[in-house]
Amino acid sequence: MIFTWLLLLIPISLGMHYFLGLGPLWTFATAIVAIVPLAEWIGRATEQLAHRAGPAIGGLLNVSFGNAAELILALFVLISGKPNVVKAQITGSIVGNSLLGLGLAIVVGSWGRERQTFKRERAGLLSSLLILAMIALLLPALFDYTERGLAAPSDARRLDERLSLGVAVVLILAYVANLISTLCTHRDVFAFPTEENGAPREQSWPIWQSLAVLVAGTAFTAWEAELVSGALEKSAAALGLSEFFLGVIVLAIVGNAAEYVAAIYFARKNQMGLVLSITVGSTIQVALLLAPLLVLISHFMGKPMNLVFANPLELIAIAGVTFAVNAIAADGETTWFEGVLLLAVYVVLSMAFYLVK
Amino acid sequence: MIFTWLLLLIPISLGMHYFLGLGPLWTFATAIVAIVPLAEWIGRATEQLAHRAGPAIGGLLNVSFGNAAELILALFVLISGKPNVVKAQITGSIVGNSLLGLGLAIVVGSWGRERQTFKRERAGLLSSLLILAMIALLLPALFDYTERGLAAPSDARRLDERLSLGVAVVLILAYVANLISTLCTHRDVFAFPTEENGAPREQSWPIWQSLAVLVAGTAFTAWEAELVSGALEKSAAALGLSEFFLGVIVLAIVGNAAEYVAAIYFARKNQMGLVLSITVGSTIQVALLLAPLLVLISHFMGKPMNLVFANPLELIAIAGVTFAVNAIAADGETTWFEGVLLLAVYVVLSMAFYLVK
Amino acid sequence: MIFTWLLLLIPISLGMHYFLGLGPLWTFATAIVAIVPLAEWIGRATEQLAHRAGPAIGGLLNVSFGNAAELILALFVLISGKPNVVKAQITGSIVGNSLLGLGLAIVVGSWGRERQTFKRERAGLLSSLLILAMIALLLPALFDYTERGLAAPSDARRLDERLSLGVAVVLILAYVANLISTLCTHRDVFAFPTEENGAPREQSWPIWQSLAVLVAGTAFTAWEAELVSGALEKSAAALGLSEFFLGVIVLAIVGNAAEYVAAIYFARKNQMGLVLSITVGSTIQVALLLAPLLVLISHFMGKPMNLVFANPLELIAIAGVTFAVNAIAADGETTWFEGVLLLAVYVVLSMAFYLVK
Repeated sequence: MIFTWLLLLIPISLGMHYFLGLGPLWTFATAIVAIVPLAEWIGRATEQLAHRAGPAIGGLLNVSFGNAAELILALFVLISGKPNVVKAQITGSIVGNSLLGLGLAIVVGSWGRERQTFKRERAGLLSSLLILAMIALLLPALFDYTERGLAAPSDARRLDERLSLGVAVVLILAYVANLISTLCTHRDVFAFPTEENGAPREQSWPIWQSLAVLVAGTAFTAWEAELVSGALEKSAAALGLSEFFLGVIVLAIVGNAAEYVAAIYFARKNQMGLVLSITVGSTIQVALLLAPLLVLISHFMGKPMNLVFANPLELIAIAGVTFAVNAIAADGETTWFEGVLLLAVYVVLSMAFYLVK
Repeated sequence: MIFTWLLLLIPISLGMHYFLGLGPLWTFATAIVAIVPLAEWIGRATEQLAHRAGPAIGGLLNVSFGNAAELILALFVLISGKPNVVKAQITGSIVGNSLLGLGLAIVVGSWGRERQTFKRERAGLLSSLLILAMIALLLPALFDYTERGLAAPSDARRLDERLSLGVAVVLILAYVANLISTLCTHRDVFAFPTEENGAPREQSWPIWQSLAVLVAGTAFTAWEAELVSGALEKSAAALGLSEFFLGVIVLAIVGNAAEYVAAIYFARKNQMGLVLSITVGSTIQVALLLAPLLVLISHFMGKPMNLVFANPLELIAIAGVTFAVNAIAADGETTWFEGVLLLAVYVVLSMAFYLVK
Repeated sequence: MIFTWLLLLIPISLGMHYFLGLGPLWTFATAIVAIVPLAEWIGRATEQLAHRAGPAIGGLLNVSFGNAAELILALFVLISGKPNVVKAQITGSIVGNSLLGLGLAIVVGSWGRERQTFKRERAGLLSSLLILAMIALLLPALFDYTERGLAAPSDARRLDERLSLGVAVVLILAYVANLISTLCTHRDVFAFPTEENGAPREQSWPIWQSLAVLVAGTAFTAWEAELVSGALEKSAAALGLSEFFLGVIVLAIVGNAAEYVAAIYFARKNQMGLVLSITVGSTIQVALLLAPLLVLISHFMGKPMNLVFANPLELIAIAGVTFAVNAIAADGETTWFEGVLLLAVYVVLSMAFYLVK
């Protein structure tokens, strides 16, 4: 498995930074790629624990640690005082999972098949969740736009933060309601690959091993995330890119790369329902859980981050994802051309993110 | 029936205002609650008349008096020179019926049931109507935004009004076309509770009684509405709320409370098609009939109100309702979680309305 | 056939301009109407060639010359230095085909029928394409809006153009991918009337005749288009209309009139799938092919036109079309009332276009 070999990047990136001193760009590049296998190992350990704990606790575990690497990375960027990069990372996760991840999976999955199908019901629930999450997520930015003309800047900032906190609480409650709904009806929209779904299951680990991997994985992720956030500014300058672009494209892809691989794997196995759950479900988790958690944590850390996306392009990107996923999911089948359309929207948005100053 | 007891509020509110002089907040609170049973009695009398008159005239009667209380309330607020509060009331009706009313009905109705179903066709027609109405309703505000940068303020105002009048006429024509379509095909999207639908029918009234209740109900509603509009400004100040917030939340809920109760009643009876017709249908009536009627009446009264919603949040709220209802209605079934999502959107919007200055 | 008689307008319009000198309004009016039969004859010749060439090459021919008249007209307006009128024409084509064309066809087609049906799958693919195209088409304008506040005007213009070029290339690639997808799966979303579809087929022409009609039709269209673009400014002044309005309503209708007639024809034959393909498919062709081609050609001509729609109303119109078509197409059936709704949206948008300065 390639993810095991990629773990070698951990000592390499640490060595480069602390001993060789090759400059921030090398640190950034190696540390960011090292997070990919770490995210995958955290996921694997979580699954092992979840498997032992039964569906109820297992679901909770999966939720808590499913986005652990992404959350840690975002927290370190936040601590280094760059809330707009964190928001760009949130936008990028939403856009990347549903356009890049789903688009790639559809294109790869439809190779040699005329079309692939999935159950409409699941797609319908995902669409509903997506739309409601998007309205809530876009509201603070539109509120800010309204308010900026009417109130003093400091007042507006204070009101923005209050609204963001309120929205965060409502989103997390909606997420909890969804968990309860899932546990009650056993109709899991955030499906995780399991035996029955055809994932190649390794032997199950003893509990101490799962816990050890979890702790070690989280600790190393934090270490690498610190390197990434420290080298972000200088790397952006060295590459001639904006920090915004690094956040919205690079950081977002890194935090979700393991999910893209899983989505492509199941698309080849012709399990499109699972593909939708992984990619769109992951987008929804970012909107309903990761983003509000970051708002709340940042508030208690004393470095409050609101939900006002700084760049209007982020709004059109988030709204566009919602409509594109709706259109693709509505008919219960996918063709390679639909995958190409999703990738085309991703490319077009990336171009705009690249050009914007 | 609680609505009968609430009628006691009529003498109480009048007494408070004219004899006790307890201050505007007491007047406002009692008068506004007194409108709830009045709206319900006007509705009951209308139904009695409609039942006798046959479907064609009956439908017209239902349409004309279905929103009578809401219209009267809006007219008195308009006369007192507060068009922006009236527009807030329109927004609030749209948002309240489709998010609060439908959300509550779904949550209450799904108690003890895994899911509830309805016919997709009806939902599809409601969605189409909703989308058309929303485009037409949002257009004047976007026109105003475009125009404001280009023309002189007085020119812009004149153009806004011309466009609003034109839009109002088109919306009313679309409403009439819908009535004709309904009468021809006997497929009533604005269903009203009838015997066959399982409503507990009281004995039918003689015509003179229906007419008497209608006239008295309308007259008392006007009286209470005058009290409400007179006490609006001071009540807002006393409560520390904006008039905008009172309009968009309080006035809107009062005008539609009877419909919420009916929606919840039929949701418990598992008649979700009727629930959709009542809540979403009511939203559509506000957009296609109430709003344009107010534009036309205000024009002839010499206090012209245009359709330019003053607050950009109103636009996102109206657009958000459209997308949320579409997402919920698309799959032909509802679960309690979908109800929670609708309520979550309502809460989030309310927070923004509360914070905006 | 009325289109044959309308060809008489060609000598009339040329005569008026070069001999009688009746003024620009007469030139404009006759030249613009003369383009209608020319577009129809180019289409007829293309079909004849396509019929002989087999589906693969035939499809390409249809695509290349299907919008020939529209493209030629736009190019001449572009050469005369009016990119905003060309963009208005693009908007008008999008709006006109999907609202006016489809609306008229539905209303006429449903005469004497309670409802008409079509296959949902085709409508689903059209909707997906429409949404992608709209996101891509609206992006440059939102980018421009973002950028204008941050960069110097000349920088913003340069960035706008780069983004527009990039978007144009992606759109054309998506169009090519769609062609390939169509050829592979033989599921043609851009259906053209063929024998089996019940079109009244004339005798097939010899190749030389088809080529001659194609060349002559294109040449005369160019000639008339030059007259139109030359007389545009003075005609607008004489009529008291803005050039924007002429572009968005008049030029757009002229370029697509032949398609409206075809759509109405097939609606009467109860072939609603074909009607959707002609009208919505034509809208998609404008967005995926005509608009990006104009951006690329204008770039190489040295008179670059970007994709930043000048008027915010164009954005709401384009987005509105997408949602309206989605709503109408989602349920797989049409009633006359849905046609009326589409026409109502068109009327409302036209009023706004008329009033805007």
